[in-house]
Amino acid sequence: MSDERIVILAHEKFPERAKTALGVMRYGDQDVRAVLDRDRAGDRVRDHVSDLDDAPIVESFDEAYAAADGDLDALYIGIAPIGGGFDESWRADVEAAIEAGCDVVSGLHYFLTDDAELAALADEHGVELRDVREPDDDLTVATGGAGDVDADVVCTVGTDCSVGKMTASLEIVAAARERGIDAAFIPTGQTGIMIAGWGNPIDRVVSDFTAGAVEDMLVEVGDDYDLLVVEGQGSIVHPAYSAVTCGILHGSMADGLVLCHAAGREVVHGFESFDLPSVSEYVDLYEGLANPVHETDIVAGALNTKDVEDDEDAADAVAAFAVDAGVPAADPVRQGADAIVDGIVDAGLGGSTVPGASAGAADE
Amino acid sequence: MSDERIVILAHEKFPERAKTALGVMRYGDQDVRAVLDRDRAGDRVRDHVSDLDDAPIVESFDEAYAAADGDLDALYIGIAPIGGGFDESWRADVEAAIEAGCDVVSGLHYFLTDDAELAALADEHGVELRDVREPDDDLTVATGGAGDVDADVVCTVGTDCSVGKMTASLEIVAAARERGIDAAFIPTGQTGIMIAGWGNPIDRVVSDFTAGAVEDMLVEVGDDYDLLVVEGQGSIVHPAYSAVTCGILHGSMADGLVLCHAAGREVVHGFESFDLPSVSEYVDLYEGLANPVHETDIVAGALNTKDVEDDEDAADAVAAFAVDAGVPAADPVRQGADAIVDGIVDAGLGGSTVPGASAGAADE
Repeated sequence: MSDERIVILAHEKFPERAKTALGVMRYGDQDVRAVLDRDRAGDRVRDHVSDLDDAPIVESFDEAYAAADGDLDALYIGIAPIGGGFDESWRADVEAAIEAGCDVVSGLHYFLTDDAELAALADEHGVELRDVREPDDDLTVATGGAGDVDADVVCTVGTDCSVGKMTASLEIVAAARERGIDAAFIPTGQTGIMIAGWGNPIDRVVSDFTAGAVEDMLVEVGDDYDLLVVEGQGSIVHPAYSAVTCGILHGSMADGLVLCHAAGREVVHGFESFDLPSVSEYVDLYEGLANPVHETDIVAGALNTKDVEDDEDAADAVAAFAVDAGVPAADPVRQGADAIVDGIVDAGLGGSTVPGASAGAADE
Repeated sequence: MSDERIVILAHEKFPERAKTALGVMRYGDQDVRAVLDRDRAGDRVRDHVSDLDDAPIVESFDEAYAAADGDLDALYIGIAPIGGGFDESWRADVEAAIEAGCDVVSGLHYFLTDDAELAALADEHGVELRDVREPDDDLTVATGGAGDVDADVVCTVGTDCSVGKMTASLEIVAAARERGIDAAFIPTGQTGIMIAGWGNPIDRVVSDFTAGAVEDMLVEVGDDYDLLVVEGQGSIVHPAYSAVTCGILHGSMADGLVLCHAAGREVVHGFESFDLPSVSEYVDLYEGLANPVHETDIVAGALNTKDVEDDEDAADAVAAFAVDAGVPAADPVRQGADAIVDGIVDAGLGGSTVPGASAGAADE
């Protein structure tokens, strides 16, 4: 949540294997007072990641609490083992946080509220265990209501899992705000929810309510903004996760789509016997599937070039991707999301306050 | 379940508004000893539906029990109010069934096992409350395993909800068996599960497991049959339910698709502001979306003509639908599913024992 003073647990995994921790540190409004990593204790965040706000890396919650003079609101679990279980080596830190009056925020599949010991301790100390992966009980089927919100809606859609849809969405929101567009991020996954401080974990809702859970969020905030950027999930031709993708696509009733891809990716991540279609085929698939529910187009592209070492090669890859997709494109991390926002604005999206892509430059 | 001696509760709704009851009576292997409908008590099933096995319609479970000399295994809830709640006017019959040692089978959203009174009573009498809409706890994400089963897989896909995908699937299985093809029905919805006596309620599983829950069923029985017919749900461009449709499409990794439509349907059922695309657009959408995961085609069509009064008009509608879809088609209820099975067999599906469509006729 905004301005929360927090500690992030990332034992033995900071920074490379602490995706959630990095996401919250890079994009969240939280005030990160310390990172817990027993393997890096004594280092500083900036020793490892130069573009983040600095903070000490410490061995235990107690040490973090002392360093912060007790000014702490919450402990965030910033890592997720394969399978999403709770690692027993974290228990002492979680218990110490609860005893110190801190909420505990977790995106694990394993719900902290289902852990009888932790639940009892939290109860005793009057703190909240916030399992962001647990859906609200009052979700229901979509009604088509996302089409009626005042804001324009953009949805990031992918050629695969793990191509950077959440990052692209957050960078688009940041770049749009820079131009004076009143934009907001609509999270759909656990890291996005931890960053935003609210949201429905779409991959965990009852399948019949997939689109409805997206609509629910858009209706909740849709009249407060000019542009909403919905974090997409998976890919529409993913052998396992396409249902979630499809529900987000139709539930968002997006006015524009941003196609996200990772440079060099040719087969489905983790399902290597499945080839990815060509970029232009994805454009046709997403537009063809979305249009009968709500008219839309691919309006921009985001290419993740983290595996391309040379900057010039990366720029070439982005240029080629833009040609294949037929829209403006950028690597939002390497190049910033301005070209992507250009595509969104050129499609007439982002609210009446934005007369055009070039006018936006006046803010810069 | 096969050969269960059952009573079906359909108070005030038999037969027109008792879709589940009719499905079980028409397609299930259960031995239906009586129907409960307090408005029709004293009538016989055949007084209302000529093509079903006959049985008495009675006022209460106790009356049914007496009429069956106590030879009863289960009470099925054969109706579903809007919202899927439990109607308190049924409680006396459900309690009487439990007290008589019968299991109770329900596809309601409201789980009988969550009703403390019924759960305690069932426990006391050693009977089972079977909520077919409650998913197994051990479901997980798909792995692509449906592509490896021995059986050929056909999936029914629709232009909308409520166009007859379950009925088409069951009629295809029956017609295929008539030809000597070792075919089985793979249920995905509560009525299908009550008919088949097993299955995962796909619309109730965690969205991330949608495809996995279909794969789970196909892997379980896929090596025991030559042809599996997966009951589709919704439509791939349904504003609310497309996630379920997409998960079934990709989870089934179908070798052939049967496109199901209702004659005259032009807008989405219950979402009338959404137009249906043309039949040929559906063919392109389903094939385009399915193919990157598993190569497949629309191989046949099923047209529901129940709203067409005249037989000749219905036949004309089927012929026009077959032209639009570019495949053999039939109304499986009005005309039988033979033409549909022709399309399946002509596509090379149904196992090596079937040399071709014409050879199959030898069995008839």
